[in-house]
Amino acid sequence: MSEITPTLRDPMSMFDVRGKVAVITGASGAFGRACALTLGALGNKLVLVSGSEQELAEVKAEVEDVGGEAVTLKRRPDSLEDAEAIRDFALETYGKIDQLVIASGYNKAGFIQNLSYEDWQAVMDANVRGAWFMAKAIGTYWIENEIKGKMLMMSSVRGRHGNISGYTGYCTSKGATDALTRVLATEWGQHGITVNSIAPTVFRSKLTAWMWSDDPVGQATKKRSAARIPLGRLGEAEDLMGMALYLLAPASDFCTGQIMYVDGGFTAG
Amino acid sequence: MSEITPTLRDPMSMFDVRGKVAVITGASGAFGRACALTLGALGNKLVLVSGSEQELAEVKAEVEDVGGEAVTLKRRPDSLEDAEAIRDFALETYGKIDQLVIASGYNKAGFIQNLSYEDWQAVMDANVRGAWFMAKAIGTYWIENEIKGKMLMMSSVRGRHGNISGYTGYCTSKGATDALTRVLATEWGQHGITVNSIAPTVFRSKLTAWMWSDDPVGQATKKRSAARIPLGRLGEAEDLMGMALYLLAPASDFCTGQIMYVDGGFTAG
Amino acid sequence: MSEITPTLRDPMSMFDVRGKVAVITGASGAFGRACALTLGALGNKLVLVSGSEQELAEVKAEVEDVGGEAVTLKRRPDSLEDAEAIRDFALETYGKIDQLVIASGYNKAGFIQNLSYEDWQAVMDANVRGAWFMAKAIGTYWIENEIKGKMLMMSSVRGRHGNISGYTGYCTSKGATDALTRVLATEWGQHGITVNSIAPTVFRSKLTAWMWSDDPVGQATKKRSAARIPLGRLGEAEDLMGMALYLLAPASDFCTGQIMYVDGGFTAG
Amino acid sequence: MSEITPTLRDPMSMFDVRGKVAVITGASGAFGRACALTLGALGNKLVLVSGSEQELAEVKAEVEDVGGEAVTLKRRPDSLEDAEAIRDFALETYGKIDQLVIASGYNKAGFIQNLSYEDWQAVMDANVRGAWFMAKAIGTYWIENEIKGKMLMMSSVRGRHGNISGYTGYCTSKGATDALTRVLATEWGQHGITVNSIAPTVFRSKLTAWMWSDDPVGQATKKRSAARIPLGRLGEAEDLMGMALYLLAPASDFCTGQIMYVDGGFTAG
Repeated sequence: MSEITPTLRDPMSMFDVRGKVAVITGASGAFGRACALTLGALGNKLVLVSGSEQELAEVKAEVEDVGGEAVTLKRRPDSLEDAEAIRDFALETYGKIDQLVIASGYNKAGFIQNLSYEDWQAVMDANVRGAWFMAKAIGTYWIENEIKGKMLMMSSVRGRHGNISGYTGYCTSKGATDALTRVLATEWGQHGITVNSIAPTVFRSKLTAWMWSDDPVGQATKKRSAARIPLGRLGEAEDLMGMALYLLAPASDFCTGQIMYVDGGFTAG
Repeated sequence: MSEITPTLRDPMSMFDVRGKVAVITGASGAFGRACALTLGALGNKLVLVSGSEQELAEVKAEVEDVGGEAVTLKRRPDSLEDAEAIRDFALETYGKIDQLVIASGYNKAGFIQNLSYEDWQAVMDANVRGAWFMAKAIGTYWIENEIKGKMLMMSSVRGRHGNISGYTGYCTSKGATDALTRVLATEWGQHGITVNSIAPTVFRSKLTAWMWSDDPVGQATKKRSAARIPLGRLGEAEDLMGMALYLLAPASDFCTGQIMYVDGGFTAG
Repeated sequence: MSEITPTLRDPMSMFDVRGKVAVITGASGAFGRACALTLGALGNKLVLVSGSEQELAEVKAEVEDVGGEAVTLKRRPDSLEDAEAIRDFALETYGKIDQLVIASGYNKAGFIQNLSYEDWQAVMDANVRGAWFMAKAIGTYWIENEIKGKMLMMSSVRGRHGNISGYTGYCTSKGATDALTRVLATEWGQHGITVNSIAPTVFRSKLTAWMWSDDPVGQATKKRSAARIPLGRLGEAEDLMGMALYLLAPASDFCTGQIMYVDGGFTAG
Repeated sequence: MSEITPTLRDPMSMFDVRGKVAVITGASGAFGRACALTLGALGNKLVLVSGSEQELAEVKAEVEDVGGEAVTLKRRPDSLEDAEAIRDFALETYGKIDQLVIASGYNKAGFIQNLSYEDWQAVMDANVRGAWFMAKAIGTYWIENEIKGKMLMMSSVRGRHGNISGYTGYCTSKGATDALTRVLATEWGQHGITVNSIAPTVFRSKLTAWMWSDDPVGQATKKRSAARIPLGRLGEAEDLMGMALYLLAPASDFCTGQIMYVDGGFTAG
């Protein structure tokens, strides 16, 4: 028989993120906020980034409410300079970065006949270019400092499945970040950095809140969407937190380049 | 802002398996043993099943060494009666079953020109039929008793990738269990049961121990295999435990029908 | 500029199958018959195999009606001996075999709780074991005689997607043959043999004819199934013939190990 | 028995493209040129588009040499206006458009640490934005005129697999066009338009000609690349023509949203 390793003796140590420092972009969205609370409650230090100062303040207060520690920065990764400024702010605050969570995301629906180039490009820029800037800024830091960082991106089942509702921006952007996940994992494997994505189906967020409202169209849309999901319901940000924590903790040290579907079975059915 | 749910306030609760009862087939293999130790250390009760009484005794002793509780049964799921006997033994012992881990597996390599039908069928029977029997026996129990069970199967990157070394048994069997994972998840979604698989690349086990030995052919094989893996090394059963625990704990309640690659990036590169 | 190769000068030569000899199992099913007529009309010689002498005679007459040539053999690949007998009959008749089409297939639906082991195994045997026997018998002949044969299997979108209607036999068997496709392609690539599968969604056949009948349940099922298909309708065997011909003709000499979805967009949507 | 349909009676009619009009961007590249010769030899009318007037003239002469008919336009789809100008030129010349082939493509390698934003964006713009502009311009025309057009994009195995050589532009762009393929197929299915991609591994082109030269590094790279391909060699543009013709001819009328790997088995092995 093999030895009983420390991991087998104390499995919870695989999820120990105490003292780690995470940068979270899109920190005031539903997924970013949930990541912040989850990591914050476990002793991870947080650099919360988004475009809304007020929302960041609210998330920071919530993080503190669960016993966590966070700083905020109102900035979006619209240029390499922005991404480097975010990185530098984190380093100045906490002296290191261990994890990067790209939780920002944007959609603008419309059949391609009607969708303007500007709207299409805005989706691509927010979802793909922003991720690439952050990866470049923080990955360079990781490689130069021999840090085995962990990067987590927000994907969607729409990277793998089309959608009849006019998603040539959103689907295309998620196919792009899925491939970015794989190529970064391949490029950075030699440095011990892991890169993965979580791909949910529809889950409750500001963008989708109308489906949970009294709006009959929203309710019908929610019902129809849920009918294609084996587990029979749409998601909540909390549903994604087990996987998010896995991908940000030592538990996933041998897992990279994956798109992890936490989608109620949508992609299986 | 939304409320701070209990999950967000106490993320470790997502991995709480105390008092759950797991049946593990193939419990004396490297993956089965690691699952047993991981779950056992966290307070899950275990029914360890395999074909070797002595090896089961050893794993049981190890489980107890990490503070866990286990019973053993020497039996393999070679028929529906075997599978039902395993189920009934678990129910008689602990009164319920919450999780099912199919950790058994078998391979017999050989180019199809040289592989006998008997050898091919033996691989299919061990890897696919055995899983189907266990799923039928325990899934029926779950449905009848309205238990939202969790089933975890052992897959491999070979369900998705061929292999030049004569794997028409092994690859075919893993493609089969991957599809079984998806169809069970789809059938059982309405009952709240989740079904997922872990797919590693080569990891250290009795079957692969020769690659870690002094055998120069083994060492060369190991080096060549590792060269295709972005993270640059083969796996250990411990590398799979974070994902295994995720898939067996409440953390994965909204995740079903997935083949989770924990493969050092093999499938991404 | 490069030269203008014979292929570019005469593209139809890529689909030239005159004088080739194909063995088709399941030749009296909708897909097998359509392959027989397609290849027969183009001058391919055919060995039609299935379990029904009368149906074979009908297909043979149809092949002759389109100007083709065929012999028939009532036998199913239920054992290696059967597969070898089919091979030997083809060799005795035409002196060689260039293509193998596994068009047989079987389904028996039922939730796993209700599906008997015998029914499940019958699906696996018909769909997987039969393909493996044929591959072994004819692949061995190809390798020994240095023939760059072409093998085509019948898959289904159900190899990749579960189904809520009790398909633990069918889905599992198609996942198995998909993996068999990949591993045979990998093993046999060095011999220049190609192995691919066609994966349709529901198409009109004896098994599905009830959906095209006056039966209101059939009509409702057809309508519901078509609603998930971007092109808005179910398939016909003819819809698959372009791809089948591609995979059986020189056109696909550099294409192997693929599952080709001709499914109206089902897997994309 | 069913009737013998015209398709079964005359299978070659499935590949009849006489009198169809195709727009081919990137027409002077290896894949675009091969498509032009293939379609031209079969009586398809061609609108050849690329950034090099001289190369276009050479391809036009070659098309005429195989008996085809073509006009040329020096323009690249760098804006929606460009794409609309290409469309309008085709309509003015031939009065209709039946097929769209996006054969242009660009790569600029470099690890993300060293790759400039401008170089990354140039790859994305050439490979993704250009395809989106062409899809919008010509798809709108198809929908308004109820034409069941066929769109073919050039993908790569790199949309699915990372690459260790600094491909955060190329891989990301191909993941994007793969998703664009699926979402356009889904959006446009109701109009009967099909959208598919061909995904080769390395094949001989201007970009890869160095691997076929006397350069020892090129030869070593070619040998190493071929070693991972089951069929044991890299590709030629001719290897892709059977699939390209399938996807552009009536043969594929029920096939949409697919990424077709013609890669010597790379993705299977």
